Amino acid sequence: MARIALDAMGGDFAPKATIAGALLALQELDGVHTVQLIGQTSVIEAELASQLSRDQQIATGVRKHVEIVEAPDVIGMSEKPTAGMRKKPNSSMIVGLRLQTEGKSDAFVSAGNTGAQMASSAMLLKLQPGLTRPAIATVFPTARKPVIVIDSGANVDCSSKELLQFAWLGAVYAECIFGRPNPSIGLLSIGEEPEKGNQLTLEAHALLEGSALRFEGNVEGRALLESEADVVVCDGFTGNVALKTLEGTIRSVLGALRDEIRSSTRARVGGLLIRPAARGLRARLDPDTYGGGYLLGLRGLVVIAHGSSSRVAIANATRLAARGVEHRLVERLAERLPETRAESRAATIDA
Amino acid sequence: MARIALDAMGGDFAPKATIAGALLALQELDGVHTVQLIGQTSVIEAELASQLSRDQQIATGVRKHVEIVEAPDVIGMSEKPTAGMRKKPNSSMIVGLRLQTEGKSDAFVSAGNTGAQMASSAMLLKLQPGLTRPAIATVFPTARKPVIVIDSGANVDCSSKELLQFAWLGAVYAECIFGRPNPSIGLLSIGEEPEKGNQLTLEAHALLEGSALRFEGNVEGRALLESEADVVVCDGFTGNVALKTLEGTIRSVLGALRDEIRSSTRARVGGLLIRPAARGLRARLDPDTYGGGYLLGLRGLVVIAHGSSSRVAIANATRLAARGVEHRLVERLAERLPETRAESRAATIDA
Repeated sequence: MARIALDAMGGDFAPKATIAGALLALQELDGVHTVQLIGQTSVIEAELASQLSRDQQIATGVRKHVEIVEAPDVIGMSEKPTAGMRKKPNSSMIVGLRLQTEGKSDAFVSAGNTGAQMASSAMLLKLQPGLTRPAIATVFPTARKPVIVIDSGANVDCSSKELLQFAWLGAVYAECIFGRPNPSIGLLSIGEEPEKGNQLTLEAHALLEGSALRFEGNVEGRALLESEADVVVCDGFTGNVALKTLEGTIRSVLGALRDEIRSSTRARVGGLLIRPAARGLRARLDPDTYGGGYLLGLRGLVVIAHGSSSRVAIANATRLAARGVEHRLVERLAERLPETRAESRAATIDA
Repeated sequence: MARIALDAMGGDFAPKATIAGALLALQELDGVHTVQLIGQTSVIEAELASQLSRDQQIATGVRKHVEIVEAPDVIGMSEKPTAGMRKKPNSSMIVGLRLQTEGKSDAFVSAGNTGAQMASSAMLLKLQPGLTRPAIATVFPTARKPVIVIDSGANVDCSSKELLQFAWLGAVYAECIFGRPNPSIGLLSIGEEPEKGNQLTLEAHALLEGSALRFEGNVEGRALLESEADVVVCDGFTGNVALKTLEGTIRSVLGALRDEIRSSTRARVGGLLIRPAARGLRARLDPDTYGGGYLLGLRGLVVIAHGSSSRVAIANATRLAARGVEHRLVERLAERLPETRAESRAATIDA
């Protein structure tokens, strides 16, 4: 049984979407887990009562798996993350993460300020020994199988050794959560040939090739949706640009299709007939289906969700946290990381 | 009347696609322009004869606007660009570009090795004074209006001053070709707030803000298809990843939609009804519709096309070159560049 701390106050649509998401996750998790709603108790209680009053059946089944943990301070989306932490030591983020350091919680989920969540997570949970940075691992929707992209936004300027660390983190993720033994690793670049790339990827290419990982070489942006690789490694700036380009393009193409369909009667009739098919596609490609990404490399479990997370996104982020606890993701990372450290040392000696 | 040199031997489907593309472009350009097919004369003549034999009407109208210029050497896609230039001084690329330096041609178009094309173009045509690098400007398909993305692949590691130069090049392009006076400039980053980005974009943000350009701040990957900005500036690595992610996502979403439609009889009927609408969308979003991008910053006009260019892509790249000549793009860049130089000097003094 996992105890998942959810930042009830974080995200553009909190606390409505966060609490609704928690309830949705609990219904589908069959009550095995507990969600700890972190935030201002009075606000959470009012919202919870209002949402539970709508469905008595859910209320009785789910309520006993919800805890409320008081956190009086709220950090705004525009506040500087570090300033926020110092000035507001009892924000929902800090309180939620502290529960984990105190052994009272197994995972933390937030759709609040990403920078604040990364900084507080690193400060409170600490990095795994041998790592220099945590990284966000996001699963991209894909035609064949999910692709893990790491780093998708935590570190804007990285070294090639950090990219090697990310590859290890992603590999353990793929093994542990998706059950892919010896997963394949691709390096995001601008051509499949080894000599294509920028200085960072050229160096990282050499390090990955010398590693014990199953490195398949460079992959291009177009491979993110149809990759043979289980894990795609990149710096956080590039990963974030790619992720947002992908999300924007999906939305834009589906929107343009809708407009085209509305433009004639014939197409409108056709549109009605393909509606169930289009809906399936939309659900599969919806970023909310993934909900969030793990912040990997810490001595604790953290899921970072989009600021604009809907109820469904929060529920999926909560489920992602539960899966991480069930599969002992953090423990298995800790077991495997000595291999990274050895390679990292070797890379230093070579350099 | 423009004389456009086309590398008949460049690209995955040359010379079939290149020659077919030239003929297609000439039909639509109403015979005002001349296409100079550069390559091995015997190969070109055979292919040209075979293609023209299919349609006598086109043959008589178009043939007189085609010139063949002999270039005996061919550079392979996998050869090192610089090695290729030295060993093969009479490749179609070098011969095509040399025509322009000799005043015998107005533009050069190739779907051959991009690295070779950039290196040869810079060597033969030379940079405009004050610039340190040429940049590829690609037009992204978009819902509202075309967005110029610069650099989309020429320079993998850039300085912030170079991003400022790219912004000027893109601005003159938007003004000159799309008739947008005082175009708006966005900087590709990972958040709209000025403090979001990597070291390069943070520095570039400050330079752009201090420039005479209409700088609108950071834009995210998702804005590439629906941007308010006329020009989006980035380094060539990021731009190339974004471009390929966008192309891959479009293909993947349309492919997934087709699969969903095939999955039930009801959807199949609907698919038939929306086919004209879907075809329109596909054409609009097809990268071939844009065909290629200008390599800007040189004292001559160069269009770089995808290696995988189809007939339609080559035709569009040829038209792009013709439009550049008609609108005096290179001359207008030269007129405006003193402004860049002044800003670039100011940036150096500040630094």
